[in-house]
Amino acid sequence: MTDAPKIVTAAMLVIGNEILSGRTRDANMYHLAGKLTEFGIRLREARVVPDIEETVVAAVNDLRARYDYVFTSGGIGPTHDDITADCIAKAFGVSIDIHPEARRRLEAHYEAGMLNAARLRMARIPDTATLIDNPVSAAPGFRIGNVMVMAGVPKIFEAMVASVAPTLTGGDKLLSRTVLALVPEGAVAEDLGALQKQYPDVDMGSYPAFRGGRASTAIVMRSTDRILLDAAADAMYAIFRRMGGEPFENEIV
Amino acid sequence: MTDAPKIVTAAMLVIGNEILSGRTRDANMYHLAGKLTEFGIRLREARVVPDIEETVVAAVNDLRARYDYVFTSGGIGPTHDDITADCIAKAFGVSIDIHPEARRRLEAHYEAGMLNAARLRMARIPDTATLIDNPVSAAPGFRIGNVMVMAGVPKIFEAMVASVAPTLTGGDKLLSRTVLALVPEGAVAEDLGALQKQYPDVDMGSYPAFRGGRASTAIVMRSTDRILLDAAADAMYAIFRRMGGEPFENEIV
Repeated sequence: MTDAPKIVTAAMLVIGNEILSGRTRDANMYHLAGKLTEFGIRLREARVVPDIEETVVAAVNDLRARYDYVFTSGGIGPTHDDITADCIAKAFGVSIDIHPEARRRLEAHYEAGMLNAARLRMARIPDTATLIDNPVSAAPGFRIGNVMVMAGVPKIFEAMVASVAPTLTGGDKLLSRTVLALVPEGAVAEDLGALQKQYPDVDMGSYPAFRGGRASTAIVMRSTDRILLDAAADAMYAIFRRMGGEPFENEIV
Repeated sequence: MTDAPKIVTAAMLVIGNEILSGRTRDANMYHLAGKLTEFGIRLREARVVPDIEETVVAAVNDLRARYDYVFTSGGIGPTHDDITADCIAKAFGVSIDIHPEARRRLEAHYEAGMLNAARLRMARIPDTATLIDNPVSAAPGFRIGNVMVMAGVPKIFEAMVASVAPTLTGGDKLLSRTVLALVPEGAVAEDLGALQKQYPDVDMGSYPAFRGGRASTAIVMRSTDRILLDAAADAMYAIFRRMGGEPFENEIV
């Protein structure tokens, strides 16, 4: 390759006590991670923080300065513990008020008399933010600067990721190949280390697992360069075969 | 209550490109979160970072200064991308070398001739650290200062959490009650907000979900004070009933 790859980075901020207490198993990080890889955006960090204003504000300001995009999940509902919109306004130093279009969407969604004061809180959007569509339950997310603020309920989060996807600019996609074999990683570690040195532009990760009680190893190789990637994967096949393994491939991100 | 509750805090650091790429769905955070709640330790933050030395070192030093305990997951295997032990040594400013007891455990675990140089890397332990038992595959984790360094493979991570549990000092346990009803959260949000103001020592979280296509709301209440907690939960039953719901309870952490 002659040009350095174009790298676009992102961070995720999961906001919610329920993940940290072990009540809820986060599902949004896994979903977003896969989608960003598809979009050519590299998720470089994910954080889970509780519903505490100063913590959320500090995390937002730290992450938005360091990554091209920040995606948040959680805390934009109608209850007192939904503090994300206010935290984002504070982080950006802007005011927050009822957004006319957000209100219109809520009015259209709820039956007459059901849009109470608590639900109307979901129309409070920081100044200068643009709305992110919510086809599931109307109450929008929003984008301000490089920060995308989305719901915590997985069904809604996933719909919002789809809504926001066309507005994102990805970089060069990381191509990947995953070569697996029923060989313990300690048996191939030295050869793999040498292979990594030989192909510095192919990122190689080794992931051990137990499959049917037997030690297996998945070598994930990633590069923006198809030719280098394929050459490295071929070499990995040979390494596994030398250790008596029958390598196979599993095309996953 | 006359005394302020004794609060012991923790952070988790998940180290590994595979979570951020969407290849692997992290399972360790959910496991640790539930266990720490059992132990009376409050998980206050979780972070996922890639296998990049400066990022791991910075995260370890940031978290260990801010929380009573830090638990890491991942990056202690035999391959070139397993850099956690070196990062921890760097973060603490100590040397790292083969630990005699760790080596002995590996020698006992592997058949003659199978403990190659790559596998022996797993006996490299930062100076002053103590070992964390690994009953699954011998290669130990370790504790240095307030940082517990553990494996990423869930089966091994969970065994190491069990190994380290007796050495941890918990604080006052957060008691919890979860009151649910097939009522949308927007319908109870205002009353819930007033209830939270009435019981500032009971932390109340509202978690909407869809159950069989119907909007439901779970109110999670947490407190170190059983009497306050029960009074608040009783009041929540009344709020749900006023909205036409049949509240029920689900004793989860």
